Parts: sequence; C-alpha cells; structure tokens
Amino acid sequence: MFNKSTYYSFLVISFLFVMVNSVSAKSMGEKIASNGNGNGATACIGCHTANGSGLGAAGFPRLAGINAVYLEKQLESFRTGSRDNAVMAPIAKALTVKESKAIAGYYSRLKSASSATVDPNFSLEPGAYLVLRGSWPDRKLPACEQCHGPGGSGIDETFPALAGQHASYIKSQILNWRNGKRKNDPNNLMKEVATKLNNDEIDAVANYYASLDPLKAGNAAAKKIVNLKTPLNKKPVEKSEFFTPPMYGDYPDGPFGESVRNGEAIFTLSNSHATSKKYVGNHQQCVNCHLDAGRLANSAPMWASWPAYPAYRKKNNKVNDITMRIQGCFTYSMNAQASKAGKAPAAESKPITDLKAYMYWISSGAPTGDKNMPGRGFPKFKETKLGYSPKRGKKVYAKNCAICHGTNGQGVMRKSQTLFPPLWGNNAYNWGAGMHNVNKAAFFIKANMPLGLPNSLSDQDAWDVSAYINSQERPQDPRHKGNFKETAKKYHQGKYDFYGKQKTTNGKILGE
Amino acid sequence: MFNKSTYYSFLVISFLFVMVNSVSAKSMGEKIASNGNGNGATACIGCHTANGSGLGAAGFPRLAGINAVYLEKQLESFRTGSRDNAVMAPIAKALTVKESKAIAGYYSRLKSASSATVDPNFSLEPGAYLVLRGSWPDRKLPACEQCHGPGGSGIDETFPALAGQHASYIKSQILNWRNGKRKNDPNNLMKEVATKLNNDEIDAVANYYASLDPLKAGNAAAKKIVNLKTPLNKKPVEKSEFFTPPMYGDYPDGPFGESVRNGEAIFTLSNSHATSKKYVGNHQQCVNCHLDAGRLANSAPMWASWPAYPAYRKKNNKVNDITMRIQGCFTYSMNAQASKAGKAPAAESKPITDLKAYMYWISSGAPTGDKNMPGRGFPKFKETKLGYSPKRGKKVYAKNCAICHGTNGQGVMRKSQTLFPPLWGNNAYNWGAGMHNVNKAAFFIKANMPLGLPNSLSDQDAWDVSAYINSQERPQDPRHKGNFKETAKKYHQGKYDFYGKQKTTNGKILGE
Repeated sequence: MFNKSTYYSFLVISFLFVMVNSVSAKSMGEKIASNGNGNGATACIGCHTANGSGLGAAGFPRLAGINAVYLEKQLESFRTGSRDNAVMAPIAKALTVKESKAIAGYYSRLKSASSATVDPNFSLEPGAYLVLRGSWPDRKLPACEQCHGPGGSGIDETFPALAGQHASYIKSQILNWRNGKRKNDPNNLMKEVATKLNNDEIDAVANYYASLDPLKAGNAAAKKIVNLKTPLNKKPVEKSEFFTPPMYGDYPDGPFGESVRNGEAIFTLSNSHATSKKYVGNHQQCVNCHLDAGRLANSAPMWASWPAYPAYRKKNNKVNDITMRIQGCFTYSMNAQASKAGKAPAAESKPITDLKAYMYWISSGAPTGDKNMPGRGFPKFKETKLGYSPKRGKKVYAKNCAICHGTNGQGVMRKSQTLFPPLWGNNAYNWGAGMHNVNKAAFFIKANMPLGLPNSLSDQDAWDVSAYINSQERPQDPRHKGNFKETAKKYHQGKYDFYGKQKTTNGKILGE
Repeated sequence: MFNKSTYYSFLVISFLFVMVNSVSAKSMGEKIASNGNGNGATACIGCHTANGSGLGAAGFPRLAGINAVYLEKQLESFRTGSRDNAVMAPIAKALTVKESKAIAGYYSRLKSASSATVDPNFSLEPGAYLVLRGSWPDRKLPACEQCHGPGGSGIDETFPALAGQHASYIKSQILNWRNGKRKNDPNNLMKEVATKLNNDEIDAVANYYASLDPLKAGNAAAKKIVNLKTPLNKKPVEKSEFFTPPMYGDYPDGPFGESVRNGEAIFTLSNSHATSKKYVGNHQQCVNCHLDAGRLANSAPMWASWPAYPAYRKKNNKVNDITMRIQGCFTYSMNAQASKAGKAPAAESKPITDLKAYMYWISSGAPTGDKNMPGRGFPKFKETKLGYSPKRGKKVYAKNCAICHGTNGQGVMRKSQTLFPPLWGNNAYNWGAGMHNVNKAAFFIKANMPLGLPNSLSDQDAWDVSAYINSQERPQDPRHKGNFKETAKKYHQGKYDFYGKQKTTNGKILGE
C-alpha cells in the first residue's frame, strides 16, 4: 500500500515522465523535419517550410495545425500508394512508424499564420457559397464545411483543416480524387465530391479556403452563414421536379427579414444559438434531420411542411398548426425536457416566431393547402424479405456512419456547437421523436446518408443500420408519467419501435 | 299622492284598458278581413284566406306573421302607386289609416302553417345556396337571408318574412322589382337584386323560401350553413381577376374538415357561437368586416391574409403570425376586454385553431408569401377636396345605413345573434380596431356598403359617412392604461382618428 507522500511522489514522477516523453517526441519530430532522419527521409522543411506553412507556388501544402493522426495517415497513404505521389512515397517509406508519428505531432502543434495568397481580383463569393452552403438541390453536394469544420478548422482525424491551405494544393488534391491518383478517402466521399464539382468551382473552393485565417477559424465562418447573400454565379437548378425555394441569402428587408435570418440561424445552430439553446436538451439541430437548412427535397423540407399545416395529427389526436408541429420537434427530437427551459418554446416566443418566419419565407410561392408536395418527408420503401437486424446494422454503421457520428453514436461537438449529431445516448433524440421508429429513420438514411452519398446504401443496409441505431438507449419519452409499462403500451405498440422490447444485443429492456 | 291600493287599482285599470283596446283593434282587423269595411274595401280573406296563408295558385300572398308595420306600408304603397297593382290599389284607397293598421296588426299576429306547395321534384339546393350564401364573387349579391333574416323569418319592418310564402308570389314580386312595377324598396336594393338574378335563379329562390316552415324559422337555416354542401349548379365565376377559393361547402374530410367547418361557423356567428362567444365582448362577427364568410375580394378576404403572414406590423412593433393577427381582431374589433373571458383566445385554443383551419382551407392554392394578392384589404382612394365631415355624413347615414344599422348605430340583434352589427356604442368595435380610422372605414364602405350595392356611394359620401360613424363613442382602447392623454398621444396621433379630439357635434372629447 502507498502512503500519502509516496502517492504524491508517484504522481510527480508520472508527470515528469510524460513531460520528458513529450519533449523527446517533439524533439524527434522537429529534428527530422529540419534535417531528415539520415535514413533516406529528407528534411520536411525544404518543401513544407520551418513553420509548416508550405510553399503555395510549388504546390507544397501547409501542415501547421493539421490533426496529427490525419498527417500520420497521409504518410501511411504515401507508403501504401493510396496517395500516388512520386516525391512523398520514398520519403514516407524511409520513415519508421515512430518517426512518422513524431513529425505529424510536431507539425500539428505549430500555430503559424498562413502564407497562402489569393489574387485580390478573384471573387471569393462563389467559393464561399459552396463551402458554406454546398449545392444540394441539383447535386446533393453538402457544404464543404459540414465535414471540414467551421471556418475550415477541420474535424478530428478524418477531416483535415483547410483554412489557409494553399489554393494550388487544394485544387491538385480535388483533381487527384477525381482522376484516382488519391483514394484514401472514407467511402469514396471525396471522389464523389470531386466528380460533382466543375473546374471553376474547384478553383472557387480552393481560393476561398486559402483566404481563411487558420488562426481565427473557429466559428467565424459559421456565423457568416446568417449574412451570406451571394449565391452561386449560376442558378443551381433550371428545372426541377421539386419546388424551388428562394435563393439562399435573398432575404426580405426590414424587421421581418431580421426574423427570417435569425430563424435560419436557429434552424442550423439550434442547440448553440442564443435564441434557442435554452430549449434544446441534447445536441440536435433542426438541420440535422432537415438537410440544406430545411431546403432539401426528400429530407423533410420546410417548404413542403409549411403549406401542409394546419392538419390533423394522430400523434396528439388534434388539429395542429405549424407552431405545435415545431414545438413537437423541440419536445421530442431536441428533448426539451432536459433543456434549461425544461420545455418547448411558447407559441409567441422569439424562437418559434423566427423559425416560422424562416419556414414561411423558404416556402415562398408554395401553394397553400398542398399536403403532398413532391419531396415532402422522406421517400418510403418496403421492408426487405430478411427484415431488419441490429446485429447486421452494427457492421453497416461501423463502415458508413462511425467516422462522423462516432463509434458510440456520440457525434462530434466543438465547444457547444454540434458538428455531427449524436444518434443515441443522452444527447440524441428521445423515445418520442419520429426518428426513433426504424422505418422512418431507414427512409431518412437511405435518401440522405452518408452525407454527400445519398441512396448509396442498399435498402437492406438502410433498414439494418436504422435498427442498430434505434435499438440503443436514448432519453426517455417525455410523455412517460412514471409507469414504464403504461408508456410502452400507450405510445410504443408500433411495429418499428424498440421501446419496451428486449434489446437483442445485451438483453436490457429499452426505455425502462 | 297614490296609496298602495290606489296604485294597484290604477295598474289593473291600465291593463284592462290596454286589453280592451287590443281586443277592439283585433276585432276591427278581423272584422274587415272577414267582411270588408263596407266602404269599398272587400274582405281580405277572399284572397288571403282566413288564416292568412294566402292562395298560391292564384298568386295571393301569405300575410300571416308578417311584420305589421311592413304590411301597413304595403297598403300605403298600393295607395300611392309605388306598388302598381290593379286589384289592391282600390282596396287600399278605400281603407282609412286606422283600418289599415288594424288589418296589418291582425294578420301579423296570426300563427298559421304555410299552405305553400313545392313540386317535390324541384331541386331546392340552388335556391338554398343563393338564400344562404348569395353569389358574391361574380355579382356581389348578398345571401337573401342577410336581410330577410335567419330561416326567412324577416327583420323588423323593412325586410319581410319569406318563410312559407308562396313561390308564385315571391317570383312575381322579384319580376315586379325588375320591371319597375314595384318600387317601394329602400335605395333600390331589391331592384338591384332582381336585375342580378336570372329567371332560373328566381324560381330557385322562390321555391326554397316556399319550402321553409314559417313556424320553425328562427335560427334553423342559419345552423344549416355549416353543413350546406351544395353549390350553385354552375360555378359562379369562370375567370376572375381575383383568387378563387374552394367552393363553399366542399370541405375536407375527417377531424381537419370538422375544424374547418367549425371555423366557418365561428367566422360567421362569432359572438353567438358556442366555441367563440366567451371571447367576444360586443355584437361583432368576423363576417361583418370580411363579407361572404371571408371570401370576398376587396373586403379583406382571408385568402389574401393567410399567405401574407407572418409579417412585421407597426401596430405592435413585432413580427406577427396569423394567430396574433386573429387575436388582434378579438382584442379590438370584437372588444374581448368586455367578454366573459376578458381577453382574446389563447394561441392553442379551439376558436383560434378552428379559425385558422378555416382560413387555411379558404386559401387553398394561394401562393405562400404573397403579401399583395389582388383584392387584399379594401381598395384605397384619395381624400376629396372638401375633406370629410361628420355633419354631412349624418345625412348619408340616415339615407343609406340606418335601415340596417339603426338610427343610433345600434345594429339589429335577435336573441344573441347579430343580424346587423352595431357601428358605435358599447357593442361596436373599440377604439383600437382598424375600422375606427376614418380612411379605413371609408375604404370598406365604398367597396362594400350598402350590402348589395357596392361602389354606389360617391367618394365624398363614403368619407363623410365614415367620419360620422367614427366620431361617435365606442368602447375604450384596450391599450388604455388609465391615462387618457397618454393613450391619445401614444396610439391616436393618426390623421384619421377622432379619439382624443373634440367631437364636432356635441363638444365631448371622444374616448375619454
């Protein structure tokens, strides 16, 4: 047994050990970066510069501040050939795994300003539009920053920071994804994106990212969304089978326009926006189920909901107006019971007023009373012969979903902002949300997930992964009055509902 | 001084005197009706029958239960020739004024069943539609029962009961209005109506009224409105410069349709309908400002309001959704402060939900977001060179408005149902209602009043009569917090607002 002083000594020694190791790793990284490893790997700084800001004119990327694991993975890719690069391949092969880790760690910790330059005559606006908005209606192309993080700050080890990266490098990489010289992306996501972009758009995106300050990235660009007024230089869709909402950013004037803008911000940042966060008891945002800020057909677009209300709903057995419907989203999908307010915002509250102003504006021109606009809700499809299996779904999840939503469905947060929403656990939608039904989630997933790869999963995979997700624990149904069996009987008799039924994987009763 | 017993004796004697007089009047009426007056006037019963039910085959009208003053006026009309009738003229001329009054009183008090017959193969539905709905969009033709009372029960001395009247007689009279043989209508109202109806429609209306039971008239037909599903046999308007709402009665199914139907009933019977009356503190109904159940262009139709909200309103300096807008109508136009509830219905209350369901349904197909649909609100026109004058307006009122709205603006009530709305006094709209502004009321009046004679007043008359109406007392502005000068300063600085300004006619400060 330790006594108290021995215990403190142990702590101090442990701490010093960690420090020394850290210093030693840093030193190794810095040493190799500056001088090479003396074993075939030349000095990194020759191309990537000492402060890691790279050399744009030569197409050598900035490495400073990029996630260490991501950088390591790239060295591995050069080694294995999933990045086809004649310069980097021999260098990567000459590095040990330990050396690779040391260099990656070293560069990831550098906080250097960007040396990227952008021609001042180059219009950044179309690039900003693609980065911040994407191009959904025609190509289901998500905004770049949905994966590369607010302000191009990157998200974890999978999605590298792009703020302040050289345009020449970004461009070359997108072209490499497109022509197959680079193929180390998860699920061919970047290949898909690169194929959808034309050359002008690649230039636009590359230059926009180059223009961002990597040291100020954070939420800066996310905040800009609210004021972004510049659409793509060409209209995304000339003719569509779906309703076309007003152009992004083409807001009305005056106090009503203010309300619309604020509504859009609430919609996209529900759990972190000052107006709405006190009503959100988890890490969900409206936009997580209603992609493209509620504009996307087959992703429960707002322009198909607004004209469909008031309407009778079985769920609460009364005629609901759009206010009640939105309150329902707060109550269930955003688990208001666990929020600071403890309940959905009141009918005349600012979040409801602004969300309605936004939804109304989005619906400009939609015919009042049309309850069946093409693209409403999620497209339904039949159950497969095999039925659905959480066990099979677990594999589908690991392959397609975990990189964004996390191995434990926990999602990704940055400070208070949700970057990828949790799918189960305390911060997911609760047992009363529509999405907890296996069929509904399967429909959503098939048509919209993974982000940027809609309709890529088979029907079977969509059913299975939905079953896997929805056979996990999540916050209690807010209609629960304390008697679990009663709640299960009253609200969870549905065929596609795991609440109150034995979980196949660990035998626990879900919802109890 | 009377003592108690003298007082009772006086009461008894007074009562007997009244009874004897009454018996004597009844006797004279009955006697002349049965035997003639022996002075050239033949017995009435020969044509009108002893029970006053008339003889349909010969075209002799039913007189039983018709307002006595109205009947007297008709005898006067036969005498003066404003009713050109070869049979009745000499009879009427042979009657003294006293005899005329006696006969009129006698017949008015008879409670006989109708002897009118209607071919069972005749479809009553087109007639019911005209009587209960009118034909507004194409001809601004009010429903017959708006003047002739619920169930054809008549309203006071101006608008005779028509329930159970012989079809042949009704038809002949409408034709007489049309061809000028009868011209004793106020402001040529019936001439206008008769000119607008075609012969089939005249038949339809005549037969429908003939089919009604005069002893059960009351509110029976008014209640039917809610369920009337039969439109005119031809669509009223093929092409219109205005939006065409769904056909009357073509309601959606299920609980939502129930809500729509109830909303329509609340809209047309606001202060007497079970769902809404507790929130109405005066004798106003939505339909009084929004004619044709909120369907009529240039009469602030609901189909132009629904798609225009949410919107910013200066009145309360915020973005209002349609709920707030409707609540505003309760607060001001329907003076909720004096109602049983004491305030407008809450956002999720049944009256608001049903009214919204109705407004939404009325707007089916209207483009969301259109804030300028043709026919929205009331058409504006410029102030005249003379300006507006309550004094001049008083004359316009007496000539055009008093027959329905009453000499003192008190309107007409039957039990709790408003037949014609009060325009000033305790049961009128309050000082916060939009209608209290001289310009707004002038715009409404010009385009819509007198009922059935739209655009018949000159601009000058519309301004003047609006000024007369709006320079009368009415319920306090609900925004008033006790300080009259403050209320006047804060809410009544408008050019067209008499609140807080000296009344021209009697020197009282209005609103104080």
